[in-house]
Parts: sequence; C-alpha cells; structure tokens
Amino acid sequence: MKKRLTFIFILSLISHQSLLAQNILGFDEKNVKKQLALEAQFDAGLNPQNLRSWMQRMTSKPHFVGSQHDRDNAVFMRDLFRSWGYEARIDTSYTLFPTPKIRQLELLGPVPFKASLTEPALKEDVTSSQLKDHLPTYNCFSADGDVTAELVFVNYGRPDDYEMLEKMGISVKGKIVIVKYGQSWRGLKPKLAAEKGAIGCIIYSDPKDDGYGEGDVYPKGPFRNENGVQRGSVLDLPVAPGDPLTNGYGHTKNAKHINYQEATTIMKIPVLPISYNDALPLLKAMGGRVAPKTWNGQLPITYHIGPGPAKVHLKLMFDFKIEPLFNVIAVMKGSEFPDQWILRGNHHDGWVFGAADPVSGMVAVMEEARAIGELAKTGWKPKRTLVFCAWDGEEPGLLGSTEWVETNQDELNKKAVVYLNSDGNGRGFLSAEGSHTLEKFFNEIAREVKDPQKGISVSERLRAYIKVNGSPENKKDIQSQTGFRIGALGSGSDYSPFLQHSGISAMNVGFGGEDDGGEYHSIYDSFDLYTRFKDPDFSYGITLAKTMGRSVLRLANSDVLPFDFLGFSNTVQKYGEEVKKLLETKRAQTEENNRLIKEGSFEAAVNINEPLSEKLLDEVPYLNFAPLENALTRLSKSAENYALLSKNTGKLSADKLNSLNGILFHAERYLTNPTGLPARPWYKHQIYAPGFYTGYGVKTLPVVRESIEQRKWKEADNGIQTISQTLNGYSDQIDKAAELLK
Amino acid sequence: MKKRLTFIFILSLISHQSLLAQNILGFDEKNVKKQLALEAQFDAGLNPQNLRSWMQRMTSKPHFVGSQHDRDNAVFMRDLFRSWGYEARIDTSYTLFPTPKIRQLELLGPVPFKASLTEPALKEDVTSSQLKDHLPTYNCFSADGDVTAELVFVNYGRPDDYEMLEKMGISVKGKIVIVKYGQSWRGLKPKLAAEKGAIGCIIYSDPKDDGYGEGDVYPKGPFRNENGVQRGSVLDLPVAPGDPLTNGYGHTKNAKHINYQEATTIMKIPVLPISYNDALPLLKAMGGRVAPKTWNGQLPITYHIGPGPAKVHLKLMFDFKIEPLFNVIAVMKGSEFPDQWILRGNHHDGWVFGAADPVSGMVAVMEEARAIGELAKTGWKPKRTLVFCAWDGEEPGLLGSTEWVETNQDELNKKAVVYLNSDGNGRGFLSAEGSHTLEKFFNEIAREVKDPQKGISVSERLRAYIKVNGSPENKKDIQSQTGFRIGALGSGSDYSPFLQHSGISAMNVGFGGEDDGGEYHSIYDSFDLYTRFKDPDFSYGITLAKTMGRSVLRLANSDVLPFDFLGFSNTVQKYGEEVKKLLETKRAQTEENNRLIKEGSFEAAVNINEPLSEKLLDEVPYLNFAPLENALTRLSKSAENYALLSKNTGKLSADKLNSLNGILFHAERYLTNPTGLPARPWYKHQIYAPGFYTGYGVKTLPVVRESIEQRKWKEADNGIQTISQTLNGYSDQIDKAAELLK
Repeated sequence: MKKRLTFIFILSLISHQSLLAQNILGFDEKNVKKQLALEAQFDAGLNPQNLRSWMQRMTSKPHFVGSQHDRDNAVFMRDLFRSWGYEARIDTSYTLFPTPKIRQLELLGPVPFKASLTEPALKEDVTSSQLKDHLPTYNCFSADGDVTAELVFVNYGRPDDYEMLEKMGISVKGKIVIVKYGQSWRGLKPKLAAEKGAIGCIIYSDPKDDGYGEGDVYPKGPFRNENGVQRGSVLDLPVAPGDPLTNGYGHTKNAKHINYQEATTIMKIPVLPISYNDALPLLKAMGGRVAPKTWNGQLPITYHIGPGPAKVHLKLMFDFKIEPLFNVIAVMKGSEFPDQWILRGNHHDGWVFGAADPVSGMVAVMEEARAIGELAKTGWKPKRTLVFCAWDGEEPGLLGSTEWVETNQDELNKKAVVYLNSDGNGRGFLSAEGSHTLEKFFNEIAREVKDPQKGISVSERLRAYIKVNGSPENKKDIQSQTGFRIGALGSGSDYSPFLQHSGISAMNVGFGGEDDGGEYHSIYDSFDLYTRFKDPDFSYGITLAKTMGRSVLRLANSDVLPFDFLGFSNTVQKYGEEVKKLLETKRAQTEENNRLIKEGSFEAAVNINEPLSEKLLDEVPYLNFAPLENALTRLSKSAENYALLSKNTGKLSADKLNSLNGILFHAERYLTNPTGLPARPWYKHQIYAPGFYTGYGVKTLPVVRESIEQRKWKEADNGIQTISQTLNGYSDQIDKAAELLK
Repeated sequence: MKKRLTFIFILSLISHQSLLAQNILGFDEKNVKKQLALEAQFDAGLNPQNLRSWMQRMTSKPHFVGSQHDRDNAVFMRDLFRSWGYEARIDTSYTLFPTPKIRQLELLGPVPFKASLTEPALKEDVTSSQLKDHLPTYNCFSADGDVTAELVFVNYGRPDDYEMLEKMGISVKGKIVIVKYGQSWRGLKPKLAAEKGAIGCIIYSDPKDDGYGEGDVYPKGPFRNENGVQRGSVLDLPVAPGDPLTNGYGHTKNAKHINYQEATTIMKIPVLPISYNDALPLLKAMGGRVAPKTWNGQLPITYHIGPGPAKVHLKLMFDFKIEPLFNVIAVMKGSEFPDQWILRGNHHDGWVFGAADPVSGMVAVMEEARAIGELAKTGWKPKRTLVFCAWDGEEPGLLGSTEWVETNQDELNKKAVVYLNSDGNGRGFLSAEGSHTLEKFFNEIAREVKDPQKGISVSERLRAYIKVNGSPENKKDIQSQTGFRIGALGSGSDYSPFLQHSGISAMNVGFGGEDDGGEYHSIYDSFDLYTRFKDPDFSYGITLAKTMGRSVLRLANSDVLPFDFLGFSNTVQKYGEEVKKLLETKRAQTEENNRLIKEGSFEAAVNINEPLSEKLLDEVPYLNFAPLENALTRLSKSAENYALLSKNTGKLSADKLNSLNGILFHAERYLTNPTGLPARPWYKHQIYAPGFYTGYGVKTLPVVRESIEQRKWKEADNGIQTISQTLNGYSDQIDKAAELLK
C-alpha cells in the first residue's frame, strides 16, 4: 500500500507541475488559459440525459434511407441545431437505393428446407415488434438473380481462402458459395466469388464470430441469437463509395446519371445474408472434403467444403429506385477565419433502429454542438467556422457524405481544415485513427479527457490496455513513448470521401471494447440492448463528446493550426520499412515454396486425407527503393527543420500567420494524386487507402504494398516512383511553411 | 519436368555412391555385407496378411485386464512365439484392478437429466454389438464416491487453467468440476481438482478435440461420435506407474502389499468420463461467468464457468479386486553374448477391442519375431539375446511392464542393453523418441526403410514433413542436418519402467498422422474402424516391423554397440540452454507482471465484462548455472574424445571389446540417481521424465526445469548440482570406454 501511495504522489506532483506550465499545441502562451477555461466550461455543460432522450426518440422506428423516420430525424436534428444557434439546413442529394421485392432461399435436397429469413420479435426488446415498413434482411446492391446450384463453403471468402481452395482442387465455378461474415468487407465476399465464377452468394453469421461463441445471446446477453441477421451493403466500396450511378460527382437534383445496369460498383451476382438457424441445415447437408480446421465455426457439425450434395435455390429481386439523402449541415461562422472550416460528423441513418450504429455516436455529436451553442450564447465565438454534419445513407455505402463531398468539392478544397468523424460508441477504450499530422494534437486532447470508470485519462487507459494486451512489438513501443500512436484510416465510415478522395486531414474516434455484442445490423440493435449492455449511463457518450468537442474547440481557436510533420514523417518512415520488409518476406516465402516443390518435400509431406497441390511461384525481383528512401529522408529533414523554426510562430504578422495556416491545412491535399490508385481512380490519397481485397482494413502506401502483395512487380516499381514524387511535393509544402518562419 | 529429372538423377547418383561405401554404425567393415543381406532376407519374409488375421482374432472380444480374452490372447501369442522357435512363457504378476459396480450421473436442475453412460452398437461395426462382459465407460483408479454439488467448468484442468480461475476469483472448493479431455494426462485432471478442493470430477470429450470438429464421426468417418467415451486410467502416473499396492517392487504371487485405501497413486475423488451427448445438458445448464474464448469447444452453447446453477449428483462404486497380469516373454538366446539382452515390446491389453490401441503395434512385434524366427530356422543366430515382450495391463497404468521390470530389476540391470517399444500404429509419418545415444543409430535405420506410399525412406518423408509443417525453428534446424532429431520420452507407454526407473536405454517408435480418429479407448476402436481408416492394407504395420526388426537385428549383431555420445551431448547441451532461457523468460515475465501491477496498468486495462485480479510475483533470483556449464563442457569433450578413438575398435581383443560393450550399455544407468526426482522417487532418470503437472509430456532435466516452472528456486539450485554430478559420473563412463581404446 505504501509503495502505491508514493507512486500516486509522484504522479500528482508531475501533473501539478505540468499544469503550471501547460502548453497547447498551436496556441500562443497568452491564449492558453482562456482556451482551457473555455474547454472546462464546455465540459460542464454536457448532459448524458440529452443523449439518452435523443437516442430513444431517434431509434423508436426504423430510419433507413428513404424511410419516413429517416426524414423525420433529419428535420428533428436540423431544428435542434437551429435552436442552439446554428445556421442549419438539410442538403438533399439523391442515390440509387435498391430494396428487396423477392427473397427466397431453399435447400432442395438431400433434406428440403426453406430459410425463414426473418428476425422474430422479443418481449424483452420493445422496438423489435415495431417493424412496420422496416427493411427485411438483405444485402444492399446485390444483383437480381434466380439461381440453382450446389453449395461450396469458402470460409470468409478472402483471397487466401480461394488460394487454399485452389490447392485443394475445388472450384466454385457455376456454384453458389456459402461464406462466413467477418474478416473482410462484406462486399468483397460476393465480388471475389463472382470473379471465381460463382453464380450466387450466401453470407451467414457463424455463432463463433458474434454469437454464442462470444457470449450469451440476446436477450440474455448482447450477442447474436440464432435468428439475428447482419444486413449490410455489398457495394464495391474499395473501388468507390457513394451513389453507384454518379461515381466521382454529386448526385444533385437534376444530375445526369447512368442506369443501374451500367453501374460497376454493384455486385454481379445475387447475394443474401442469413442467420445461423437458416445456415445450419445448409451446412449440415454438405459433403465433399472436410474443411481445414482453421475454417471451423462453432456450429455442431463437421464443416465440409462441398461442392454439394446440398443444392439450393436462391431467388432475389430488387426495386432499383432512386431515393433522396438528407444530410443535415449546421454551421457556426468563424469570427476571424470564416473560410477555414472545422467539420465534425456522424451518420444518422440506420439499417433498422440503429441504436449503437450510428445513433450512439450521432447523439454525442449533437451534444457537442449544443454545448458549443451554449458557449456561443455567452458571447464567445470560434475563430474558425464550425460545420456539424449528420450524414444520411452511410450504411448503403457512405452515400450521403460522398455525394455531399463530391457536390461541394471546390469549396471544400479551399476551406476544409479537418474532418472529425465518429460512427457509434460504447463503453471501453479509446480508439483513434487518422492523419498522422494530427497525432501529436490528438495525444494532447486524450491526455486531458478522463475515463469515466477509472478516473485516469483516456490516453493513460489506452496506454495501459496496450501495455497489458498489446502485441510484443506494441508493448515495447508503448514503453518508449509518453503517448500512443494513432492508427491509419481504411474505410467503413464517412471520413473516406474527405480524406481519401479529397486530401482533407481527418480523424475517426470512438470508445469500445467493453461493449461487445452481436446486434450489428439486426433489428436487435435497439435502445433496449444499448442501454442494457453498451453504455447504460451514456458516460462514454459524454466522454466522446468531451474528446471531440475539445478537438473542435482547439482546432477552431488555435493560433497556428496544430499539424505536426514530425509524427507524420516518423510514421511514413515506418511504412517504408514495412513495404521493404514485405518484399523480403515474399522473396523468402517464394524461395522456400519453390525449393520445397523442387526437392519434392511438398509431395512427400502431403497428408493422404488432406492432399494439397502446391504451385511454383514467379521469382521475386529486387526493387529500386532508393527514390522512396531519398524522399523519406528529405521529408524527415523538412519536418525537423519546420519543427525547429516553429518556435518563431509568435513573431509572425497576421498576414503571414494566415498564409502559414493556409499552407498547413492544404498540405494533406499534396498527398493525393489526381489520377488516383490503380484500378480505382476515386481513391486519390497515396498514403492511406482501404485494402483492395480487404475493404475495411487499411493499406498504407497502397500502390506499393498491394502491388507487392499481388505480385505485380512492375506496378510496385512504378508505385515507388509515384509515392516518392508525392512525398517530395509534400515536403515542398513543409519547406514553404518553414520559409515563412525564417 | 526436365529440372525435376535432373534432380532425381543427381540423388540417385549419390545414393548409389553411398551404397558402395556403406557403413553401419557398430559393425566392422567385414560384417556389413552379411548384416545387410540378413536384413533384406528379414524384410522379404514379412507378410501383412499375418497382421490382419492376428488383429482380427485378438480384437474379436474385449481383452482388458482380468478378462478371459486377455488371458486367451496371452496364451495364443505364447504358443505362436513357441512355434517360431522362441523359448516363450507367460510371466504372471498381480495388481489391484478396480472395475465399476455403480455408475450414476444426474443433473438435478434446473432441467433434470440422467446421463446415459453407454455406447450403442452400430450396424456398420461388427464387434460393437459383442459387448458381453465388457468394461463399461469409467476411469480406472477413481475413488468411490457419492457426491452432490454445483458444477464448475475448468477447461482442460491444467495448472494454467486454475491460475486463470484464481484470477477470475472462482473456486472449485466443494464443487464438482467438469473438464475437457486432452492437453494433459487424464489422471492430472482429478488430481489437480482434488488439490484445489473439488469433491468430484467429470471428464468429457469435446467435439472440437476429437469429434465432429476434427472430421466426420463414426461410422461415416473415424472421429468420435456423440456417444463415444474415452475410458482410461487416472492413476497418478507422473508419481509412479505400476500396481499402486506395490510401488517400487514387483507384485509377485505372494508379495506383501498395502491395502488400496492406503495407496497414494489412486485418486482421492470420484471421477467419471462421459460423451458429449451426456455433457451437453450439463454444460448448457451452467451459468456464471462466460469462459475465456480460448476455453471454448465446439458445442452449440456459450461455455460458462459456473459455479452452478447446474447441480449434479455423481455416484461411483468400484470393486477393488486383485487381478493377474499375463506378460508374454519370448526369448531367443544370443550365440555370443547371451547375457546382453535386446528387448522389444508392445502391450496386448485393450480397454475394449483395442484394435488401434494396442493391437496394431502388437501384431507388428509378432511379425518381427516370426520373421526373425524364420531366419533362425536357416541356421542364423543373433549374437545377443532377443527378448520379445507382450505386456498386459498397460492401459490401467503400465502395470504389466512395471511389475515385470520391478520383479526382474537385478537381472535387467546386468543384462538389458536396450528396450524398444511401440504402442499402436497407423498410416503416416515416422515418430521416434528415445535415448539420444541411439539417435545416430536410429537415423541409419530410418534411412533404409521405405515409406510404402511414397517410395522414399521414412527418414526422408519425416524430413519433408518437418520442412513443410515444422515450426520456424525446426524448419531451420532440419535444413542444417542430413537426418532428424529424435524426441525425448515422457510417459504413457511401457518404456517408462525401463528408461526412467532403471536407466535402460529405450526408444518408442510408431507411424501416424494420416490415421487420425476419435475411437481412442471407446468400443469403436475396432477391427472394422481400423481397416477402414487407419492402415487398411497393414502396409504401415509392415513398415513398423521393418523399422524395429532391423533395429533389433543390428543391436543384436553389432560388433560394438551403436551408442553415440556426441548426439547425446549435443542434445543435453540444448536442454541446458533451454533451462537457462526459461529462467530468463520467467524473470522478464515476473518483472513485467509486477511493473504492470505497480504502475496500475492491469487495473486500468481490465475489461469490465471480464475482470481479472493479478498478483505480485516473487522476484526471480539468478541461479548458479556454472556447475552445469562445466559438466556439459566436460561431457562434450569426453564424447568428442571417444568419437575420435572409436576408429580403433577394430583392433580390440575380444575381452576388451566385451568390456567396452558392457560400459557402453551400462552408461545410461549412470544418468539415474538412486533417490529419484523430488516428490517422486520412482522416477530415477535425471535427463528425461514425464512432467509432474503434464503427465504425458516430457520434461528434460526435470529437477531444474520443473523447479523453475514451479518457482522453487532453492530446489532448482540443488537440481543444478544433482544434474551436474550425474553428468560428471556419466562422463566418467565415457572416459572409461575411451581408455580401453587407447
């Protein structure tokens, strides 16, 4: 006990000292105290009861794209924003939004079975019986289809899984695949299946992944019960989000658009999500080879790959109609720099009631806006313009945000300083991803916000989590730091059009890890479930509001925008090391593979019950990484030079300061390339992109990393050139900023 | 294709060359050709039809200890051995052998359920309906008991699992544990449960481990079906195998023995094995905390730890009677060195029909003996005495072999050169464990025996297996070698009394890996299952006979016994590095653990849904490894010196050669210590022992390794002294051998 007390004493000494000398990145010394007082006032104004009552109202009915309650929620929020002093409006865009007309899935034999495709009401969950006009279980942007074929089980349906199938000599050509949810963006499951020749795709939630294998199922616990189905988009998101009829430009009222039959980001085959109750008879009826053990879920069966003898009939017909998207935009004009926008958003549409996803995050955004509105009523004004956004149509494919960004591209290019996103929230640990120029800034924020359960900062709690649960590398890394590293952004929420399409610095933040469940995209993602299992007292909703509201206030008021190039340079340096190592690993694996084949070891070692045929791989060339290494060295020097000179910011004239800020927030634009990434020109950012074959998961330095992964050596070589040029252009901007400070 | 052809051409060139200059370890040049001719003649005499017909006969009825068919099989084998020219006899010992009188297991609530405790007959399996007088499902050497209590699920019931339970704040005191089969010697499950205060133990086979999670269940496939039960002994094997009434001496006809109530190696609580059909209602009825995900099996439930609310009544009563053990001993006297014995054995008793376990190995031994008998009929005689052994009572606890070894201790000490064991066999890859002085010898054997499926040597196939499937370390290691390393022996078959109690060099060999199934110790381990799934044409039975028969012939005829000290020294050196590294790892883990507690990270990182309380650990001292390092250096020098001088063996007089061979085969005795290991004096070997808390798994340098694992620093320090002295005594013997060669 004594030791512990001493330890706490020392800690409090340090924190006392640092309080005396507190700096805030980007603030002149004279403005720090005022800003901290403002933030304290902001915190004091936050009220969890608001989050609770707004959530209850907004999740009382299904509120998907095109529904009445979706529209009602938009009006409700607009009016609230107005009541808090914002210039609020609804920006309407349009989109293709297919909804199901016919959904049939039947097992023809050996034992016939008809899938129920329904989620029953539960007496413990009030809204589960209020399903008038709700969207039944389906995958949005599936193709129409009426197909009959044998089943093939393809695990999670990732490229690796198809590689394994090929080694086993099993083809999905002309078959219907049955695939587990999880481990990749769901749209890639039917996409890859179709590329391999499958004519239909059934996606099911295995109980191992978010059902009874993870914990008690709803209503006893929060996990997916036997009837829960994950709805969801199967748009080809890694190629381009947004309305598939207007790729790259906004679908405004009278915008020209292609027909849905011509759209390239819609799936080519019919695809349907089902529950594990519906999946079990199908999987049980399968024969053929026994699946590798790593493919097993937790159903009480031997998982077989097929093909067949299970044969299914899948019939899906959709209404491919155009629907409006209601983005709520609330603006508080900046007093000094009205043309520098700090954007903060979350989506408001849900697949059904959407309590956790997305309303738990949306109500935090609203409370941030309300509390800032209260500050403004005392006479305070933000120096920069605040833009609060509630996006529609995120679920079907980031539709609302993408159409809005594409519509307002030019203005955003000029004015957008940063976009701060969230998308649902729960009890637990901080999760933060984004542009690494914001890493230092965000670390300061996270050091000041307290975890409501532990009373330490959310930064300290995250650091403790990594110290205890991190990989050996991460454990070592966190010991050498005083803060934490933020992750890189892949895709899956509304930051994509800002960051990856437009080069606007962005972050995505939320809390979680003590809120696990299996309600995702089912009718059971409800107010009842949320308030029992996710964040019962909304204390983490308030914590998110504190974190992001404070971020907004600092970005809005800072004297010099708090972008830090050293952290970015440091991180990109690491990515450079990673891609070099990736190539070496590929080479070693290729050499081992080819050696084992040539010397006959594969053939000798093969298990008669699980034969695999291995193939010789093309040799891995050495690539010229010198341009990248030179560009990284230059970036590092430029960043260091700027950091040295940045002590001079206090002496700048207002004009020069303004120029400096302009350079700072436009710098991220220089990380984009107008021609975009190979095979997906919509994605222009050269540092961060969702994986072409993983979807959600990020691929940093994507053109090099993915080319190596896909063994496209020439493309990798070109990619090194492109990225190096991009980084040099970025360093030019840092040097330009530094020049102003000399 | 061309490349491949070239490659094969080079290989065949090399093997042709090596054939021209072939040496055999331990043979004078002039004797090599004769020996190779003898071995070829032996191979040619082997006939798989014998294995098939003997197996069918021996597995036609249950043949457990005390059964009529067990006695019949012994007589049958004795008579066969006699017909092949052996002096064969049945050596009878006695043992306690409890069999069940009452077996009851019922779930009292919430939903009452009575366990069936039976394995039904299957029409696809002929013997499954021939269960007259068979042993029902039970654990031999359970305590009597009539207990009622709540259930606690304890995963595999290993020390780590109880550590986790303690962190979760869950006690088994006064409860009945339900535990999964696998990952440790089954006797440790009730032993540890009792140590922790449990009053009963139920062991079940989770379908993930050898049921539908592994593949199709019987009769469709070979894996454990919903009613299959693993019988088995729960004797405290890691303390001492053999009759628990006569620990350390043979239970002959009129031997004095303690009462079973005084026996220390019998379990203290009642324990019963059940099927997953019987386990499911019990586990389903459990509540309390959700088990860690790594504890999950593949039943369609959320695994809960309890305690309760599931409450069970378990009642077990046994007939603690004395039964005879019939060991069949068949001797062919050596022509030159009749007092140097080459022992070769397998057990013959099974829990029920025991086709795979043990008869598949027993029939290979018989065929070896028959073929050698054929050679003898041509006038050839082995130089040393051959002793073929068919052990009774291995299943309940290595009873037959242990009582026999204990009874014949003095003679064995003088005469036993080596004991070669097998225990079941199937299709697949070579598995070889044993004394490392035999590693070089056995590598030669394995290079000459062909795999029946691939036509390459079993050595090459094993090497290929490791190259493809080995750990990164093993892959690297195998590349640097021309052969393979043999494993160290833990326990679980009849080599233990020879090697670990008596210091007789031993090996345990079998084939497998393409014969997986879940029939183990159930009524479905039958001739039908074996010939459908395990080794349908008995070609691997013949391969085992070739491997072990060749081993017997070489050991019997060698001029100098083929013990190699360099391989041994090299291996023990590695063990020395391992225990040093183990201490360092413990230190690092302890430091990390204590740091995380003191700085508050554990408390901050804990998940509210899965709270754990971590404890400060005592600091890890530095130990004085110098005596071990000195002993290892000396061992290495002695081994090198002997290897250098061993070229002189051809020049030795017959007397000196005889002395040399005596030193060589007695050397292993010097690796034992008369006082044995801490808390288990029966185990005398200082290099190899079964793990005190793992049972089957080996612990090398056990007194040091286990003391470190159990944080007994003083014992570890003493252990280093003991092992160092033992190794020095061993090096003395090598030096003595070298002296003869000068």
